Amino acid sequence: MPNAQRDQNNVKITRDAAGSSLVLVCEHASSHIPKEFKDLGLVPDARQSHVAWDPGAAGVAQGMSSCLDAVLLETTVSRLVYDCNRPPNAPDAMPDKSEMHVVPGNIGLSETERARRTKLFYEPFAMALRQCLTDKTSPVLITIHSFTPIYNGTPREVEIGVLHDSDVRLADAMLSVASECVSAKVERNAPYGPSDGVTHTLRTHAIPYGHLNVMIEVRNDLISTPKRQMEMAETLSVWLRVALQSLGLTAEGAPCTV
Amino acid sequence: MPNAQRDQNNVKITRDAAGSSLVLVCEHASSHIPKEFKDLGLVPDARQSHVAWDPGAAGVAQGMSSCLDAVLLETTVSRLVYDCNRPPNAPDAMPDKSEMHVVPGNIGLSETERARRTKLFYEPFAMALRQCLTDKTSPVLITIHSFTPIYNGTPREVEIGVLHDSDVRLADAMLSVASECVSAKVERNAPYGPSDGVTHTLRTHAIPYGHLNVMIEVRNDLISTPKRQMEMAETLSVWLRVALQSLGLTAEGAPCTV
Repeated sequence: MPNAQRDQNNVKITRDAAGSSLVLVCEHASSHIPKEFKDLGLVPDARQSHVAWDPGAAGVAQGMSSCLDAVLLETTVSRLVYDCNRPPNAPDAMPDKSEMHVVPGNIGLSETERARRTKLFYEPFAMALRQCLTDKTSPVLITIHSFTPIYNGTPREVEIGVLHDSDVRLADAMLSVASECVSAKVERNAPYGPSDGVTHTLRTHAIPYGHLNVMIEVRNDLISTPKRQMEMAETLSVWLRVALQSLGLTAEGAPCTV
Repeated sequence: MPNAQRDQNNVKITRDAAGSSLVLVCEHASSHIPKEFKDLGLVPDARQSHVAWDPGAAGVAQGMSSCLDAVLLETTVSRLVYDCNRPPNAPDAMPDKSEMHVVPGNIGLSETERARRTKLFYEPFAMALRQCLTDKTSPVLITIHSFTPIYNGTPREVEIGVLHDSDVRLADAMLSVASECVSAKVERNAPYGPSDGVTHTLRTHAIPYGHLNVMIEVRNDLISTPKRQMEMAETLSVWLRVALQSLGLTAEGAPCTV
């Protein structure tokens, strides 16, 4: 079952047994807020907006998982419940405001509640990712995100961001071949960068082990429909393959159909 | 079986079901070098010396586990095979020299061999510790080490070091009550400190979660026999209890017999 999915313990894993050395991660895949959190006190608009998740990112990541025959790990709850790209002691792991939205259900959280959410959502995700990487030989970690075209009232021109922390190898390789592989406006460490705390997953799971890694941010107006998400997945998959080839690597066991 | 031990997957766990919130760790418990590593090319003297392990530390940690009814996790191989208090990308995770000793079996290690040892020794230890901490409410992490009285030919006067990284709470509490609890010469962040990379376990498993934590270093001439190790364990256990009490905490479920 090459495209088998399992959803357990608050982690959704697709293609667990995939042959590729690539490991795809989507930490902001879901806008789901479990009932017990009572919508975190948010109005429906806010719960569906980019403050709650990365719209389109899961669709892109799922498409890449298919194109590359690569395992994909997704979170199953909104980043407002727990942001799995943040360590437990980061204030924005369970933010009480995001952009212009106050998150009433996160105001004045007790240490007990922070620890409970950490155990429920962060630990299972981090442990599953760690196990997945441990099971592979020379894994390559790729995290897939999306960003809003207008932030705090200002439009963003960048269309795809290639983000890295101290290990620039894969990001450099992607940027070097970007002009051959993608027509979108690509920038390095934009619209965020490591100083914004967005490279937690890379810093925790890839860098200490020497695994190649990169974080890809796509402007969400470019991936607003399933069709556009699949097209973007194909573009990113080919781009990644070319970048890996330039490093002398292949996404082994990954017969890309695009 | 309150003092049950299990030794599996290269981690030795004592009192897995202990009631205390304290979690004891001894990363340099063993001088064992599995046969496949052919003594790492070392002569017997080097294999038994402090370059291979922390002599006496395991005995102290086991005594503390008993006094405090606290779980203890120990490594089962020499730190020269893999130093579980170092991340995989640290050169001294698998050092090719230590103090004045060259470690022939670690010279020019391939990436493949480094990754293999990481999977065999570091990951199981880190995962077991992480699971153990996750299973507890408000755990307190304490790592137990020993250091040599003479280093690179220079005698060391400090007898017990209380080490910390950015979270000073428990170390400060211990240092505040040190004069009441211990007659030995105690120093902060000595003979090492966080800049020497020795706080990896604390930084990885405690600080991101807000768990109280401290690293205790004992000069190994003070714990050279089982009797002295048990006496030191009793001293450290009472000292820890007093320090925790000064923070308004107890080592709950830990009926100390000393």
